Order: sequence, then C-alpha cells, then structure tokens
Amino acid sequence: MQKHISSLQNPLVKQLVQLIEKSRERKKTGLFVIEGQREIQLAIKGGYVLKTVLICRDIFSGDTENFVTMNSEVIELSLEVYQKLAYRGTTEGIIAIAESRVNQLKALQFITENPLILVAEAPEKPGNIGALLRTADAAGVDAVILANPKTDLYNPNIIRSSVGGIFTKRIATGSTSEILHYLKEKNIAIYCAALQSSKPYHTIDLTQACAIIVGTEATGLSEEWLQQSTQNIVIPMQGEIDSMNVSVAAGILIFEAKRQRGFV
Amino acid sequence: MQKHISSLQNPLVKQLVQLIEKSRERKKTGLFVIEGQREIQLAIKGGYVLKTVLICRDIFSGDTENFVTMNSEVIELSLEVYQKLAYRGTTEGIIAIAESRVNQLKALQFITENPLILVAEAPEKPGNIGALLRTADAAGVDAVILANPKTDLYNPNIIRSSVGGIFTKRIATGSTSEILHYLKEKNIAIYCAALQSSKPYHTIDLTQACAIIVGTEATGLSEEWLQQSTQNIVIPMQGEIDSMNVSVAAGILIFEAKRQRGFV
Repeated sequence: MQKHISSLQNPLVKQLVQLIEKSRERKKTGLFVIEGQREIQLAIKGGYVLKTVLICRDIFSGDTENFVTMNSEVIELSLEVYQKLAYRGTTEGIIAIAESRVNQLKALQFITENPLILVAEAPEKPGNIGALLRTADAAGVDAVILANPKTDLYNPNIIRSSVGGIFTKRIATGSTSEILHYLKEKNIAIYCAALQSSKPYHTIDLTQACAIIVGTEATGLSEEWLQQSTQNIVIPMQGEIDSMNVSVAAGILIFEAKRQRGFV
Repeated sequence: MQKHISSLQNPLVKQLVQLIEKSRERKKTGLFVIEGQREIQLAIKGGYVLKTVLICRDIFSGDTENFVTMNSEVIELSLEVYQKLAYRGTTEGIIAIAESRVNQLKALQFITENPLILVAEAPEKPGNIGALLRTADAAGVDAVILANPKTDLYNPNIIRSSVGGIFTKRIATGSTSEILHYLKEKNIAIYCAALQSSKPYHTIDLTQACAIIVGTEATGLSEEWLQQSTQNIVIPMQGEIDSMNVSVAAGILIFEAKRQRGFV
C-alpha cells in the first residue's frame, strides 16, 4: 500500500522544507526538491535520479509512471501538506526529491563542430540565472558554463525561473581558471562582454567555435577573463541608463551568433 | 528652518507608506514615490514635478539643489524613518513625492523619420515592465507604448527595475484600439511577435518605420493585434522549453532592428 502523509509534523515534510529553504541542507545531503510536472519530466530527461516522488491526488490526476525513475518511492500527500510545501499550491500537485550532481566541464559533449557557448561569471540572483538558462536553452547553445556561481544550482528559484532548463546535460560549473583552461585547450574563441578596447558585437564573426562571456551587472567581468579575452565585445547603447539586464544582454549576443549561423 | 520628521507616527510618513504600497492611493492622489538619487534625477530630466523631497542626512551628503523642482518642499528624515520607508535602507538617502502624469500617445514626439517603437500588450509583472523599459532605453527606441497595462506605471517595483527608465518622455499608454489607430494613421508597420503565419524576425526589413509588438508569456497577443498585423514575426527556438522571458525576446527583436539600422 502506498504511503500517505497528512501531518505537517511528519519528518519527511520537515526535511522537504529544509531542502527547499536551505542551500546548506542541499549540500549536506546531496538532495534537492523539484516542483511541477514539466520540471520533473525535464529532470528525468536530463538523467537525474528521483529518490522520492510526492503526489497530491486532490490536484494531480496524471499517470505517476511518467514522473518516476528507477526505484523512486511514491508517496501521497494531503492537500494541506502539499500546499505547505508547494510554491504553486493549487496547480501541478507533484513534488520530487532528486539527487543533485556535479556538472563537470569534462562531461560536456558538443554535437556541433563549431560550438556556441555561454559563460556567466559569478551569477548571483536566482532569477537572473534562471533567465540565462532559459534563453540559452531557447537558442540551443551547445553549453552554458557558470563560473564561480554564488548560488547553488538547485535553488528552487533557479529551477522555477529556468522552467526546468537547469536540468539539461548542457550545463557545467567550474572556477574561472578551470573554464579558461578548458576553452583554450579546445581552441574556442573567448568574447568577453566588456567595454575596454571593445568592438560592437555585430561586427564580430561569431560563426566559429566561440564562447560569449558575461559578468554581473554590478562589477562586470574579472581581470582574469579580460586578460584572456580574444576580443571584448559591446552592445552599443544609446539611452540614458546605459545598462541592461544581464539575461537580456546575453540573449542579444547569443541570438546574433545564431543569426550569423543561420539558425542551424 | 527645515522641517524634520523623526516619528513613524507622522501623517506624512503614513501617507508615504500608502503611496508606496497602494496603487489605489496613487490613483486617488495623483502622487507617487521615487527612491534614489539617479531615479529622482531622471524624473526631473523627464519633466516630472516633485512635490516633496525627503532627505536622510545620515546617508545623503549631496547637494539638495540637484534633486528638487520648482517649489519642492524639502524635509529631513531621521535614519529610523528613512529606513522604514526605503527599499534600499542604507544607501541613497533620498526619497521624493512626485506628481504622476498621463502619458498620452499624442504627446509622443519622434526625432527620427523612421521611428522604431516597442509595444507591450497587457504587461503585468512590474519586474518585466521595468526590464522592458530598461532595454528600450538602452536601444534608444523612439517610443515604448504599453497597451492596457495591468499594473500602474508608478509602482515602486517598476521604477526600481527600470532604473528610472520609466521617466523618459518616450513612454505612452493607451488601449489596444487607440494604439492601433495611432500606428495606422502614421503608417507605422506592425510586427507582432506571434507564431501564426510568422516569418523569422531576422528575415524582415526592420529599417522602415515600425512597431514591434510583444504580448504576455502566458497568453501572447490578443486577436485585435493579430488581425491588424503587417507581418507576424518569430524568434526561431531550438530548445526543450520553447519559451523566453518577454523582456529578453523584446531585446533580441529590438536590437536586430538596431543592427539593421546600423545603430544610428
């Protein structure tokens, strides 16, 4: 018989709250929480292992089989417990506990001969990281590499704002020096979004293997990146504010590369 | 002698809280609140009238003269009161009460002969509206028109996320039918970001007078827009998620127009 949880005092419910709220808890246990049908299916497609799948039958009427991996334990939740845990308390009806993984550079595999890569240095705000991942997914870039991210990837806000885009196999993290070494070794051109000695982005040939590197809005890119830059690129700005959201800037740069490549 | 407020019970402090928190209060009084030095200066540059300017001397050390308009009353706030009111409680040190205005279509003035216009239909999330305004400002578009916005423009989150870009003279609001009439009358081509019968955005000549119309992520554009569309345009997507943040999509489309126009 399937396990059913209807008490907010249940230890598993308390662990779920910890995993949702605390990065430390996620790191300690190697587990994290995924909410939502689409997100869970993208995680399965991305090869994640789901330890536990929690269903609220008052909301979820789908087939559980499509939302489990090998040996997932399936547990039913009462509506009250589900709504305590879920961000979107009235829809979806499904939450999973998944095993996190280290997204190593060496695990990246490029399908194309001239890969297009997005690198974001020291991204911090979960919403920005999510938007970057979503944009990169839409563009079908070969990889997104996060250099020294300030937030752990399994933060619920990143999962939500990336609409599950965090779960593809095209994501890696590493230190700036590891990533630089990796790109140089593979002869991938490094285009840093930075003002100094820059050329307008649309005048650069982005059809060859290249990485576009964006920093934070507050501090830009570190000296380490700028010293190794093949060419700095800039989006000409003509407004009074003279700054752009980092995910918007990344979108403009990536899609210019896609345009030059004829969207193939 | 300058007025000084150090009590949280002061009626003006209570009014400020209402103006910050309640759209209804802003509409009723025709007033709104601006926080931050840069934002206040952009509002002054945009022709807004500041009724009251509130300074916290513990934080603000600038010259008040640069942050007032004709007849602004200047009032000092204690640190405690300032921090109760301010979102960024430890920086800036300046808040203003400004008079709102109706941003009418007929007040728009184009400097260029072939204006580039961004229209957003029914935008709702303040953060998205702010990012749209900021992107449009960076691109130096001739106008941003909001059709049936679901949030009042003087929401503090819009002001903050647009980094003050809300205060330029290039912004107008109106109903969809008013805006359609306005664009048709001026022979401005209407490019709707919509899937049906669309062409890839980069294959369209965006160098002539044109408006790019974006809808909401959830529901897209209304039938009214689609029926009057000169041509629907689409950003080719190659990912698993198949959707993009609306401000990122708008950025990609606008900057493609700028690229075609040689950034002049």
